[in-house]
Amino acid sequence: MSKKIVLAYSGGLDTTVLIPWLKENYSDSEIIAVCVDVGQGKETEGLEQKAIKTGAAKCIIKDVRDEFVTDYIYPMLKADAVYEDQYLLGTSIARPLIAKVLVDVALEENADYICHGATGKGNDQIRFELTVKALAPQINIIAPWRIWDIKSREEEIEYLEKRGIEVPMKKGDSYSRDRNLWHLSHEGLELEIPENEANFEKLLQLSVSPEAAPDKPTYVELEFEKGIPVALDGQKLSPLDIINKLNELGGQNGVGIIDIVENRVVGMKSRGVYETPGGTILYAAHRNLEYLCLDKQTTAFKEIVRVKMAELIYSGEWFTPLREALSAFVDSTQQTVTGKVKLKLYKGNIIPAGSESKYSLYNEKLASFTTGDLFSHHDAEGFINLFGLPLKVRALMKQNL
Amino acid sequence: MSKKIVLAYSGGLDTTVLIPWLKENYSDSEIIAVCVDVGQGKETEGLEQKAIKTGAAKCIIKDVRDEFVTDYIYPMLKADAVYEDQYLLGTSIARPLIAKVLVDVALEENADYICHGATGKGNDQIRFELTVKALAPQINIIAPWRIWDIKSREEEIEYLEKRGIEVPMKKGDSYSRDRNLWHLSHEGLELEIPENEANFEKLLQLSVSPEAAPDKPTYVELEFEKGIPVALDGQKLSPLDIINKLNELGGQNGVGIIDIVENRVVGMKSRGVYETPGGTILYAAHRNLEYLCLDKQTTAFKEIVRVKMAELIYSGEWFTPLREALSAFVDSTQQTVTGKVKLKLYKGNIIPAGSESKYSLYNEKLASFTTGDLFSHHDAEGFINLFGLPLKVRALMKQNL
Amino acid sequence: MSKKIVLAYSGGLDTTVLIPWLKENYSDSEIIAVCVDVGQGKETEGLEQKAIKTGAAKCIIKDVRDEFVTDYIYPMLKADAVYEDQYLLGTSIARPLIAKVLVDVALEENADYICHGATGKGNDQIRFELTVKALAPQINIIAPWRIWDIKSREEEIEYLEKRGIEVPMKKGDSYSRDRNLWHLSHEGLELEIPENEANFEKLLQLSVSPEAAPDKPTYVELEFEKGIPVALDGQKLSPLDIINKLNELGGQNGVGIIDIVENRVVGMKSRGVYETPGGTILYAAHRNLEYLCLDKQTTAFKEIVRVKMAELIYSGEWFTPLREALSAFVDSTQQTVTGKVKLKLYKGNIIPAGSESKYSLYNEKLASFTTGDLFSHHDAEGFINLFGLPLKVRALMKQNL
Amino acid sequence: MSKKIVLAYSGGLDTTVLIPWLKENYSDSEIIAVCVDVGQGKETEGLEQKAIKTGAAKCIIKDVRDEFVTDYIYPMLKADAVYEDQYLLGTSIARPLIAKVLVDVALEENADYICHGATGKGNDQIRFELTVKALAPQINIIAPWRIWDIKSREEEIEYLEKRGIEVPMKKGDSYSRDRNLWHLSHEGLELEIPENEANFEKLLQLSVSPEAAPDKPTYVELEFEKGIPVALDGQKLSPLDIINKLNELGGQNGVGIIDIVENRVVGMKSRGVYETPGGTILYAAHRNLEYLCLDKQTTAFKEIVRVKMAELIYSGEWFTPLREALSAFVDSTQQTVTGKVKLKLYKGNIIPAGSESKYSLYNEKLASFTTGDLFSHHDAEGFINLFGLPLKVRALMKQNL
Repeated sequence: MSKKIVLAYSGGLDTTVLIPWLKENYSDSEIIAVCVDVGQGKETEGLEQKAIKTGAAKCIIKDVRDEFVTDYIYPMLKADAVYEDQYLLGTSIARPLIAKVLVDVALEENADYICHGATGKGNDQIRFELTVKALAPQINIIAPWRIWDIKSREEEIEYLEKRGIEVPMKKGDSYSRDRNLWHLSHEGLELEIPENEANFEKLLQLSVSPEAAPDKPTYVELEFEKGIPVALDGQKLSPLDIINKLNELGGQNGVGIIDIVENRVVGMKSRGVYETPGGTILYAAHRNLEYLCLDKQTTAFKEIVRVKMAELIYSGEWFTPLREALSAFVDSTQQTVTGKVKLKLYKGNIIPAGSESKYSLYNEKLASFTTGDLFSHHDAEGFINLFGLPLKVRALMKQNL
Repeated sequence: MSKKIVLAYSGGLDTTVLIPWLKENYSDSEIIAVCVDVGQGKETEGLEQKAIKTGAAKCIIKDVRDEFVTDYIYPMLKADAVYEDQYLLGTSIARPLIAKVLVDVALEENADYICHGATGKGNDQIRFELTVKALAPQINIIAPWRIWDIKSREEEIEYLEKRGIEVPMKKGDSYSRDRNLWHLSHEGLELEIPENEANFEKLLQLSVSPEAAPDKPTYVELEFEKGIPVALDGQKLSPLDIINKLNELGGQNGVGIIDIVENRVVGMKSRGVYETPGGTILYAAHRNLEYLCLDKQTTAFKEIVRVKMAELIYSGEWFTPLREALSAFVDSTQQTVTGKVKLKLYKGNIIPAGSESKYSLYNEKLASFTTGDLFSHHDAEGFINLFGLPLKVRALMKQNL
Repeated sequence: MSKKIVLAYSGGLDTTVLIPWLKENYSDSEIIAVCVDVGQGKETEGLEQKAIKTGAAKCIIKDVRDEFVTDYIYPMLKADAVYEDQYLLGTSIARPLIAKVLVDVALEENADYICHGATGKGNDQIRFELTVKALAPQINIIAPWRIWDIKSREEEIEYLEKRGIEVPMKKGDSYSRDRNLWHLSHEGLELEIPENEANFEKLLQLSVSPEAAPDKPTYVELEFEKGIPVALDGQKLSPLDIINKLNELGGQNGVGIIDIVENRVVGMKSRGVYETPGGTILYAAHRNLEYLCLDKQTTAFKEIVRVKMAELIYSGEWFTPLREALSAFVDSTQQTVTGKVKLKLYKGNIIPAGSESKYSLYNEKLASFTTGDLFSHHDAEGFINLFGLPLKVRALMKQNL
Repeated sequence: MSKKIVLAYSGGLDTTVLIPWLKENYSDSEIIAVCVDVGQGKETEGLEQKAIKTGAAKCIIKDVRDEFVTDYIYPMLKADAVYEDQYLLGTSIARPLIAKVLVDVALEENADYICHGATGKGNDQIRFELTVKALAPQINIIAPWRIWDIKSREEEIEYLEKRGIEVPMKKGDSYSRDRNLWHLSHEGLELEIPENEANFEKLLQLSVSPEAAPDKPTYVELEFEKGIPVALDGQKLSPLDIINKLNELGGQNGVGIIDIVENRVVGMKSRGVYETPGGTILYAAHRNLEYLCLDKQTTAFKEIVRVKMAELIYSGEWFTPLREALSAFVDSTQQTVTGKVKLKLYKGNIIPAGSESKYSLYNEKLASFTTGDLFSHHDAEGFINLFGLPLKVRALMKQNL
């Protein structure tokens, strides 16, 4: 009997190869190509025809950009989640959503398989498959890169050429990239050797390098409600518009470019350059507002939560009880993260330029040097005497040894 | 009987007032002024005469800059300790050492009291006194700001003028600052209102603003051994020379300037601008090397350790069993943090420009897309099947509800 | 003008002294005695007369036992919060509620002060006052033990005798105790010396010692819904009835008695014996159910949350954003903590005797040695190869040094 | 060319099958059977003959019991490492040592393979292989349970019978057990169903059940130096003798029996009963001493460290940089964990009966109710005013909304 396969499809080299390969290896199968639009910035025009022409029975295009921002990026932003203190999780955060859409289609279509084109070495296969397992454990997964004999892009191209299928990409002329509305990543070429400096001039696509950015700063003001950005420069905008606009401003000013060596899910190291112009601004703004609105203890514990949240997102463990519980923690902390933050963008720098909140815990009287009646200097003595008492007791014990 | 008081003395306004005040309020007391040089960058010439002229019996100047770097800054650097994800702890880290020197002198001199000029509102009184309690619990502390009627700098000046003592500072023309070889902090004036943008042009002293920095980048290469910097641009330098040189380079390029609202030890918020040009470079270099040399799990747990380490340093809890135990953890992780890091300084940016280590865990074969024999793509399937098994089991359980 | 003082009143020695003392020291003040019933197990009969007779204008008795269980004890139970791995927080958890009731009355009565009889050394003053500060920062606190000259119980008795007021307690014949429906604590006498064994025969009031417990075990079955106990031995019972019944069963079987040295809020050590018969059973049952229903990662992170939760409760930081955020985390984890747990109580032991849940993640097929199709043994090889890859890479690096 | 295989050999059913299976499947291979004695309590007499008779070229017996205690158990004990708050890691902690001995022999013998008899479902395969990867990445591993067609003990027996080899165990009459000098674990049979109560009378081997224990308590006094037990009841004993003696005393009194559902390394749940009589006493004694000697902050952070340490040990990640760094942390905390602890063992209970240490931080003056000059009650007011200031500021902010 014919089997139905839902295929994650982009029209790029990898997924173009997958359709004929599936046809050949899963004979009689019906392939439903699904293109999930998370802001890759690629034309989806002509995609359907192309899929069908190469063998798909159907091609479904799902624009989930709004959902991506509000249900995935915002919970991550509220958590200040940063992987290994550097990476804003641009690729990672899109994977569970893409996989969820594949699952949704597979369930609607009563499909038997979900197929993805992630390689057998990287994180993405893990992220995709964990989501499938969590949402539809009965659906089987086909991961051709772990099965077939194709070993490189060159061989993919050859595979297509042999079958007379148009190759959507030239041979070995480029980095390995992943793009969505939140970021663009670059791997490969000179980056594979950590000693090498990254070639920003050649690499960058969303942003200019700091050197190439304008000599005059750009100011931007962001307004947040409960940890979520709602307005930019005084104008209420949709989530998607805020990010797009910030990407533009950030990109122009060369902010949000990082060059890192990170630990993959299974622990091996890889090196990448990431452009996250708008995201980096949002994170900076959000944190600056939190500095006003969160108390010391919450701030300290949230440091632990954000590390764990980032680990989970990085590993594709979005649809897990722990991620949900961490999000509940985070949401509780965001009740008062409401206010405005001004930032100055200048040649790669994001410089705080003032912030305010009606929930601000900053108390001018307490902060200033000369005034204040909320506590007396006398209290400080008592505080120190008790706060330091364990140290004193220990010191006395040591003197008695 | 006459009492001996060891006074933390700098020759600045606060401590200049303290000598006559102590003489008047602790009659018969013998004041030993101690100036601890942690790189304040102030002339110590003439300090002794000044102290004695205003009433001190003695003035001792201790240059502990080397010790400051190796025994305080380095353990902090190795821990990547950053308070509230922003502050490089420039003031905090100096306090335990200053207090330790005061204690050393007090024990040598058989003194009865240690007196400091920290205000009754801030962190420094806590940091000083915790160290005294930890090292010499029997010595009493005099904290005039918590006792006397003087309420402002203006009144301090008045106090001195009344007694015909030269005033070392003009009235109300300035920020409240703290400087040592690691950093310079600024509080007060426009900074007291979080809505205000900081006036960098007016504030900055160690560095130029990013705007004022040169249009051409500066490259710097740092070499580390077990987490400690040993050479700069290929030249072995003393710890002090490395920091001084980096301060110069960093300052010229406008790096290491932050403007933050932080939570003080007791939880109230204060706002400050900090210049840490050399320190910021060192931290960046160190972290970049760690990205090569530390494994994923160590990296993850070290995130928790660095948060706690920073809390302890910030609170003045240096001489505590927990800080020592955390340092033992950190030192263990640093055994392989040996290698070279190149950084590009440009108008406020510190951009990684390649790093290398013989202990690097980066494995080119594993990182690349096309090659590699350390594991098979097949293994990945097994990994994902097991890694995702709990999610699958949970999903099946939910389907059976 | 006359001032109104709300007084935490129990009719015990301390609070009996407070009424005349307040009358004498806050002349013209109107004293509203408030007795908050959290299950102290004392007669409140005659309390009103007694309060008025000794000078109170009014005496209000509030029975908040239900609220105590559902809004304070249950959130703590769901968190598995245990202070320093031993103490079930019996005294700590009652304090915020008592203080909240005082604040409620004070606001209703438009009072100027809240007065409590906690000593100047312990944790309770901190817990009471933190709650007042959090809920009604404008109300002032009177803590007589930090003000008056009375230094001991003997002097309190003397104070009352001088004024012809009946003394509610005999001189120095007893431990210092705190009781509520969750627990009974004992401090003082032989316990003050850590070398001493506690005299259980003399101390215990809620329970018998293990030795004195019956030779036959008692089985108890608890049913939970979302982390909250709802039935005991198959019978739906009110929260209060469950705890009372468990206290009875636990007490009879000598379970839930601990003898510990703990670190007080400010770090000094104190030693106490705590009886928490019902609470200890509830905690054990809850944890056993969690072992079935929570996944590995949630379990692991919850260990960190419970430590922090316990710290906050111990310190009286109940009405804080961090406690609320941690509770949000915990509540999220409890969605599936539904099921039954059987326990065997025997001479101090609580022995699991089987548990079940429709949300159980225990999968018989996976657990057994001989069967199972959820994963193949082959997968294990892949898992180990990837899981161990960082170790292998590191080992290879070391071999190349 | 002939290959050398080092085989983990015990003479039990599994490993008895392995020798002929290896001979048949790795033809020409030379099998070196290695029996690592970690206190399994089995006769090693006759083992060599048996191994050789069934096909091994050599049989090496290594008694590493002392090393097991001092280099593996003690670091774990000092960390108070308990997996999922219950399991004393008896099986887990032995695995890295056993694997290390296998590696040592393999390197000496220049062997090509290490073979172990752990199943393809459990934790032990992971623990063994991680250690091999960490210590000798070039050596290949043979894990027959992941390769062969044998699916059960019954089939193993059949396999042996077919070849005329004596079967060291009767068919299906028993639990799956693992024993060493620290513990004995039981899995299988009625335990596979969580609803079932464990049959202690049938299961237990090292200990009697609480019911069967004597009616009179046994007192035991342990002396520690830097976290390590050095004497029992006043008598200096070797590490091994202390554990053996405590196993005897604990076993007689029914202490240290747990019945748990735990999360395996890859997250599936399994249920086991563990007997750790001596270990449980040691842990209790050690913790009681720590309560006297460790300060509050160290205690709190150590809670996080012990959770992580237990995770690492459970997962077989002993030879990792993180485990070593955590041990460095722990060792630093143990400098003052020196003193004596008395415990009362009674029918499953371990009841503290007094402890003492020259490093005790317990200060009688501070602990008592009536005396004390280390701090004034007045200090408490100042402490609370500052400690509660953030709550007050927040409350004022909310009132101004």
